[in-house]
Formats: sequence, C-alpha cells, structure tokens
Amino acid sequence: MPNGAQAMLATLVKAGVEVCFTNPGTSEMHFVAALDDEPGMRAVLTLFEGVATGAADGYARMAGKPAATLLHLGCGLGNGLANLHNARKARTPVVNIVGDHATYHVAYDAQLQSDIVTVARNVSTWVRSATTTAGLGQDVVEAVSTAMGPPGQVATLIVPADVSWGDGGQVLPPLPPRPPTPVPAAQIDALAEVCRGKARTVMLLGGRALRGEALTLAARIAAQHNITLLAEVFPARIERGAGLPHVERLAYFAEMASVQLHGVRHLILVDAKAPVSFFAYPGKKSYLVPDSCLVHELAVADQDVVAALIALAQRLGAEATPPCLQEAVRPELPTGPLSAEKVCKAVGHLLPPEAIIVDEAQTAGVTLPMHTAGAAAHDVLTLTGGAIGQGLPVAVGAAIACPERPVLALIGDGSAMYTVQSLWTLAREHLSVTVVILNNRSYAILNVELQRVGARAGDGANGGAKARAQLDLQHPAIDFVQLGQSMGIDSVRCSTAEDFNQALQRCLSQHGPHLIEALIPNDLSGMKLRLLPHLLRSLKHLPQPVARLVKSKVAP
Amino acid sequence: MPNGAQAMLATLVKAGVEVCFTNPGTSEMHFVAALDDEPGMRAVLTLFEGVATGAADGYARMAGKPAATLLHLGCGLGNGLANLHNARKARTPVVNIVGDHATYHVAYDAQLQSDIVTVARNVSTWVRSATTTAGLGQDVVEAVSTAMGPPGQVATLIVPADVSWGDGGQVLPPLPPRPPTPVPAAQIDALAEVCRGKARTVMLLGGRALRGEALTLAARIAAQHNITLLAEVFPARIERGAGLPHVERLAYFAEMASVQLHGVRHLILVDAKAPVSFFAYPGKKSYLVPDSCLVHELAVADQDVVAALIALAQRLGAEATPPCLQEAVRPELPTGPLSAEKVCKAVGHLLPPEAIIVDEAQTAGVTLPMHTAGAAAHDVLTLTGGAIGQGLPVAVGAAIACPERPVLALIGDGSAMYTVQSLWTLAREHLSVTVVILNNRSYAILNVELQRVGARAGDGANGGAKARAQLDLQHPAIDFVQLGQSMGIDSVRCSTAEDFNQALQRCLSQHGPHLIEALIPNDLSGMKLRLLPHLLRSLKHLPQPVARLVKSKVAP
Repeated sequence: MPNGAQAMLATLVKAGVEVCFTNPGTSEMHFVAALDDEPGMRAVLTLFEGVATGAADGYARMAGKPAATLLHLGCGLGNGLANLHNARKARTPVVNIVGDHATYHVAYDAQLQSDIVTVARNVSTWVRSATTTAGLGQDVVEAVSTAMGPPGQVATLIVPADVSWGDGGQVLPPLPPRPPTPVPAAQIDALAEVCRGKARTVMLLGGRALRGEALTLAARIAAQHNITLLAEVFPARIERGAGLPHVERLAYFAEMASVQLHGVRHLILVDAKAPVSFFAYPGKKSYLVPDSCLVHELAVADQDVVAALIALAQRLGAEATPPCLQEAVRPELPTGPLSAEKVCKAVGHLLPPEAIIVDEAQTAGVTLPMHTAGAAAHDVLTLTGGAIGQGLPVAVGAAIACPERPVLALIGDGSAMYTVQSLWTLAREHLSVTVVILNNRSYAILNVELQRVGARAGDGANGGAKARAQLDLQHPAIDFVQLGQSMGIDSVRCSTAEDFNQALQRCLSQHGPHLIEALIPNDLSGMKLRLLPHLLRSLKHLPQPVARLVKSKVAP
Repeated sequence: MPNGAQAMLATLVKAGVEVCFTNPGTSEMHFVAALDDEPGMRAVLTLFEGVATGAADGYARMAGKPAATLLHLGCGLGNGLANLHNARKARTPVVNIVGDHATYHVAYDAQLQSDIVTVARNVSTWVRSATTTAGLGQDVVEAVSTAMGPPGQVATLIVPADVSWGDGGQVLPPLPPRPPTPVPAAQIDALAEVCRGKARTVMLLGGRALRGEALTLAARIAAQHNITLLAEVFPARIERGAGLPHVERLAYFAEMASVQLHGVRHLILVDAKAPVSFFAYPGKKSYLVPDSCLVHELAVADQDVVAALIALAQRLGAEATPPCLQEAVRPELPTGPLSAEKVCKAVGHLLPPEAIIVDEAQTAGVTLPMHTAGAAAHDVLTLTGGAIGQGLPVAVGAAIACPERPVLALIGDGSAMYTVQSLWTLAREHLSVTVVILNNRSYAILNVELQRVGARAGDGANGGAKARAQLDLQHPAIDFVQLGQSMGIDSVRCSTAEDFNQALQRCLSQHGPHLIEALIPNDLSGMKLRLLPHLLRSLKHLPQPVARLVKSKVAP
C-alpha cells in the first residue's frame, strides 16, 4: 500500500494533473521521493515559488487543466502569493500542494511555523489541511475538482509531513466534472431584445469568451446587429490575428476606456466584469460604465459561455452570419534606433504561426495589439491581477503546456526582475521561449501614474529628485545579457531596429530559450502625447461618434 | 497643512524611523511624492518586496530601531511575507506601510483588490487599515510604538490611497517608550537556587541575551557556578569573537543538539525558547529537552533581560566574577582546492574588526562558528525563521544601519536565488558588503534531509533520479560572476583557497559592494561523516561527559 505522498501523486495523475512546479523543502521530501514511483508526473524545479505559481497559471491557461505546485510551508506559499493572485483573477485552475510540519510538531512553534491557512485563504476558494493519510486521496480529488470549476479556481491542500510519510494512502479516481449552471431561457430572450434594438450596444468579452467557438459566435452576433465587441483590459487568454474576429481590448488608462465606452447604451457582459479603473485617482470616477448605459449579463463565471452564446445566436438567427474577420496585414520591418513601438512592429512583422505571446511589456507594449492585429493567429496571455512579475513564469508554464508552439514573452525591465529566476527554469527545461526585455531602465508606468494621481512635490508635477529616483532603474543599469547568460540562456542586446529584427527572427526560428535585451528610450515627456495617436488608430474601427470625440478631445 | 502622506512621513521621522525600504506602485505615489518634503527620511529602492522586508529586518537588528517598508497592496506584502516571517521570529521591530486602493474603490474589486488584512495577520501582531487622513498620524505613532515593543514586533499599517492624498494630516510626536514587564524577585530567588545547585545546568541565551551587557552578565554567572552557556540555534544577532564570552550555538541537526543537551538537569531560558527540532522526522522526538531536565525562565520577550540578569548576578554575588572570555586565535590561511571549510577558515583568518557576518551559508557554513570564534569581535545575524532568501536582504539593511562597519554575507547558492535582486540595491546604494556565494550547485541541505526523513524511493536511500534532480542546481550551473556584474557589482570566481584568500582580503578592504563566487564541492556522500568531527571539535569546551558521549556515538 502506498504512503501518503505516493497516493497523492498517483491520484493527481489519475485526475489529469501531469505537471508539478516545485520548490520543495524538508517537509516535502516524501513527495519528492515519491516522484520516482510516478512516471506520469513531470516535476519542474523552480528557484523561487513565484515562478512555480506563475508557471502553473500559464500552464493551465494553455492546457485547459490544472498543474500542481509544490510549496514549502507558509513562507513558500507566501512567496508564491502574488502569482496565485493573478491566477485567481484569471480564473485559472491551480492545485497547490503545500507541505506543513508534522501534525504533532505544530505544538512546538518551530522556526518555520506559521498560519498557512490564513495565507492560503487570500487566494484560494478552497483550502484544506489534510489530517489523515487514508483521507489524502479524497482531499486530492476534491482539490482538483474545485480547481477545475467552473469557474477555474485556486485550491490549496496543506499536507503535514506525517500525513505524507504515513502508510495507508488511497489512490482514488477523479470526481466527475461539475456541470455549469444553465443560463435561463428568459435571460437569453431579454438579451436578444437588446441586441435587436437600435441603441449603441457593446458586448464586453472576458474569460472563456475570448477564444474559439465562443469568440466566433460573439462575432456572428455582433456582425448581424452592429454590436461593438470589446475585450476586457487584461484577458487571461485571447485568440487573435489574421482570420479570427478582431476584438479591441478596453484600454488600461481609464481616460481612454471612457472614450471607448462613451455613448454606449447597453453593455452586455460575457464572462466579464463591468469595467472599472485599475486604480482610483483624485476626482475621477472608478466605475467606467456611462451613467446612461444599462448593464446586462449573458454568462457569468459558473455558466457555460459557449452554450449561452449558441442560444443567443439561435434566438437571433445569427448562427450562420459571417463574422467580421481580421485581414492578414503586417507592419513593415522597422529601421533605425530602436524604440518600444519598433519592437512591437517587428513582432507584428515576424510573429510565426501558432505563437503564444505573453505580454507584460507595460508602457512599452501600448502599440503591441495594433501591430500584431493582422499577424498569424496567436494567443495572448496578459497580467490579469496586476501583480507584476507574472510574465516570465507564465511563459514557462505556457511552453510546457504547448511544447510545439513558439512562446514570445515581452517583459518590461522592472517586471522582469520580480521573478527573474524564471530564466533558470527556461534553460533547465530547454523551453522554446524567446524573452524580449523591453529595457527603458525605469518603472515608466509609475512616471505616468505619478502625474495621474496628481502627486506634486518638490520641483513640480513630475515629482522631486527623491520621488523620481524611486522610479528610476538606471543606477545601476541592469545588464540583461549578462543576467540571461548567468542562468544559461543565449542572450543578446539590441539598440537598433535592424539588429532587433535579425535577433528576433533567429530566436523565433530556433528551439530552446533565448533572451533579447531591447534597449529603448524612456521617453516620458512625450508619453502622453504619443499615446493619443495610437489610441486614435486603434479606435479606427469603432463607430464614428467615438472616433470623432477622440479627435475633438485631442485637438488642443 | 500636510496631506496624509506628508504627515505620515513627518510622524515616522519624529518617531526615529529614518529609513524606508521601498517597492512602490500607483497607490503609494503620494508617499513617494512626499519624500522630497521630508529630508529626514532615506528611501531605499528595491526591485522586489522580499528585499525590502529583509532589509528592514537587517537594519533593525543592527540599529535597534525600526525601518519602514513601503509595499504595494496585498501582492506587494505577499512578496515580502517570507522575510517578515523571519523578522517576526527574530522579534525585529518593523513598520510596514502598505498602500491600498482608495476606500471608495474597494467596492469595484479591481484587478489588484485582495484581502490585505488577511495576508498581514500572518506576520503582524498589529494590523490597522487607516480610515481617515486626520487619524493617520495617530495610526503611525501606534504602529511604531507597537513595533518597538518590548518585544520587537511587525506592525502593518494599510493606507488607502485617498487617506494618503487627503488634506488635513496631523504630524504627531511619538508615544513614550513602553516599559518592560518586571521579573518578580521571587523568580530571581528561585533561579539563584538553581544556579547554586550542583546538578548540570545550561543557560540557553536567545534574543537580547546574546549581546553586550546581558551576554557579559550571563558569562559572569556561568563562570561562578560552572553553568554551560548555549545560544539558540538561529539568533537574530549574536556578539562574539576575541575578548567576548564564547557561547556555543545549539546545533541545527536535532541529533547533535540532543548530544549538547544530554544529561542536563536544569535549563534556564534567557529570552529563548525551549529547544525543538527544526522539522519533525519519523520516529524522532520534536522536543529536545531531556525528560529529566527542568526548564526555567529568567526573562521572556516582554521583560527586561539586562535587569533580570543584573538581579540574578547580584543575588549570586557574581557581579564582579570574571567571565570566561574567548582568546584571540585564528585559523591559518587555507591552501589548495577550495572547500566550504576552507572558506570558513579564510573568513576566520581575515575577518576585520567590527565586522557584521550575515550567515545563510546552510551546510557550507557548518564550521563557520568554530573558525571565527577567536577572530576580532563581530556580530553574526542568522536565519531566524527558516525562510531562506533572507541573507542578502539582511546584509543590505545591516550595511545601511552601520555604514562604517564591513558586512560579510555568506550565502548558499540556493538561498541566494530567492532574493537575488538584493545585489542591485547593494550596488545602487554603494554599500560595503562582501557577498560570498558558497556555490555547491545544489540544495545540499535537502540531500541530507532526504536521508533524515527516511524517504526512500527508486534506487535507494538517496532517492531516485527524479528526486535527486529536484535538489540539483547544476543544470544549468548558475554563473554568479555574471549575475553579480549584471547588477553592477564587482564579482570574481574562486576555486582555490589561495585565490579566495586574496579576493576576500581585497574585497573586505575596499568600500562598496563585492561578490565572490566560491566554487565548492558538493560532497554529499561524505557529509554525515565529515560533520561529526566538526561537532566534536566545536564541543571541545563543553564538560567532558558530553564530549565523551559524542565520541562513543561516533565510533562505528
């Protein structure tokens, strides 16, 4: 009969959990030892728990099923918390296995003793501390079932060391899938009425509505009834590119999102939340839905999004309406000194088929959606929970879920440093990920935010010298080529578009991990002015009133 | 009248909080902007929150007063949690300032919304979410007062953005220091009786008892009554070296600690806990105090340790008894291929006066206490809470607290990677820290633990191939020289003792940060055998029965 750890691993594998992202300690040694008894489980070592949890997020976004993490007590879980927060906001299924002291050891308040349940609650809808070896199999199948949802959730199983090492583990089959909650027919009827109306209507797609059949159904309905499709600001995963429906994302900056939503009378939420600003700003509204707009929900998190869209399309007779599909158009290859926008253009020009883009480029990625809109069909994974340091780990997980697809991770320099240990796991597992570090040597977004919150001090609106120093990453400048090489990754630096084009083409065509440090200017004084033309261009497909409004706002 | 952030900063400075370790985001921009109005506050930027919290721990251990941290909502606090755990276990005073969404923004569950209080509770004895700008000054003085203790604590003040940016902040003077709880005279009398007795007695010193006057008083009492002094396994700060009382530390491995405690009839705890094993192991006891031993407490966390020791020394007439002091003896400089022990010998030989050693060398540092015992007087800061990734941040903080003292951080390769971003702050602030990475390309301690927990799988007691791979950091090997240089730090690699001696001497004599990668063998098969002779040598000053017992146990 297996011990607890062996039964736990076998039960996970039976439930389809085949990958575990680990950073183990002594209390997890029996789990580690049991790996050799379970050929169905791949254990991917990380050097920091935030890499493990972010990788589990990226894996599940692409694989459609959870990975496990293996974390060392409350502190290991704590280190993984930020990316579990992102996973929670993405509704990603994740199963955390957190080792704990043996049950009888807790009384002694040893050095690593802490309240693990409290930490776990912050991100997990399901937390259980296993109490018996015999019950561990049941704990595991419930954890996996909860994680799978719908909706996808973070489930955390805390496993005391003696429960792991005890004899008498039970290997159990998985629980049956949980059916989604049906959307009532009356609700479909009501929404069909809204769609048929003449008032300006936006369908805001989020979560599962941004992929595959759901996306196409939404596009058919939109085409038939002149409805504008928008995507939530930070989708967990969005399918886009040539041949797929084009959906603008709602802007991060509330000022711009308000423009996108201006004049809308009906907002239909499809697995999405009503839009709010990312942060609050003095004197500005947090809730971005116009006062005169009615908000409707087609499908929420625990409902079947595809079924709801099928029902709506049928009610509207839109099942066969041709959706508006994105043409295959790509930007020219850029030339001259490198800039953030030129990086985005080069990506748009060179993106290979089936690519997965992980976007944590922050300000440097503002024009990425525009320049990649007509590239070969691809997936984009974004920063769902706003906790930066997500991109590199998510790329690790996505590459493990989809070994045949090229992964392109576009990461701001500041973001990269939170979970820079990801580079080691990329090298260790020889994952086909091209990391582009957009290095403007600054927390550039915070320079914008410093202005937006109206914080004025010292010598003006941009803050005094001490304030500005808090946003400055020039002293010392980080050498990302050395950093990448230190962890075994082929790395190059580019400061011209020509060099970058060549490097990107080479890296995307070769297996294994690569890093390109793209040196780009930190052109903050021009930031606000430069943003608005991009916004205009990105809004060119929206109905005229909105575009006109933007124009009238821009003209000084 | 100042805004909330300005009042908060001014109140912190009035209370003696002069350093803030930061990783701010948008919700902290008013705090950042206010820095230029407050010349008394030094803001030290970090690239990851675990660096900020660990630095605050290191700073307060040396400065004897708290630093503040500035963290971005629940996720920023989460990233800092592991080192706050270490600070909590060290009883270090820390004041966390955690920015939050504006009070009215919380209702919208924006991307970064999470339950900050829950995360904070895990490590903080005091948590408050500020509600008004006018009340913020009072919140700050209470936070600082709580942090100062006694005992030192982690206090977390959550500050919504609108409380920061609101007008009408109040700058308040600090609260008066809180007096410690007195130790009753009857308790002193009872302990004096124990000390006068003939039964074998150990005084276990922890916390504040390992420094200055308290340490000398304990040594006087020990000398007068043939009492053995031991130090807790992982002291927050211990003063040692030539001319100071020599105190053996209790061993990390329970097997060895049991030897140190064998035959003890009275254990007097002075600001220390009764010893327990770090982890539980199948079939082994967690509580390490022998069954026949009585445990007594002289002073606990909220009591005045020095006053209690003065009272006891007076009762015993030991005020003028000469303590046993450590002679000035240093090991010879090592030669030949480098090893962990040779690194420790070189440190013992070369340690400059007034040094601060930060010890997170794990297995590689087993002989460090022995080889540095007779070096110039120094402080050692250790891994109090077992959450690795503490050493580099603590070195940052210690160097800022004591700019005139050389800091030597001895860090295992695995440990270094958790908070490797510390290197950037070392370079940015030009701190005189010499980082020695003891690189055995392994989580070496876990190889030992895998054996100790009795986890056997696959091909034997050392685990199967998958298990061993989880503890292996060779593939790829991390190049710490490139890693250090990538963040602006002068870095060299040494694989011979001669090179290491030279590098260490040079680095310790020059201002600013340096990194030495010490390549050492991962000699695990010999680990257990090699440990025991060191234990014997380190126990040579203990009364004979213990040393004899060790010998009898070692003889195979």
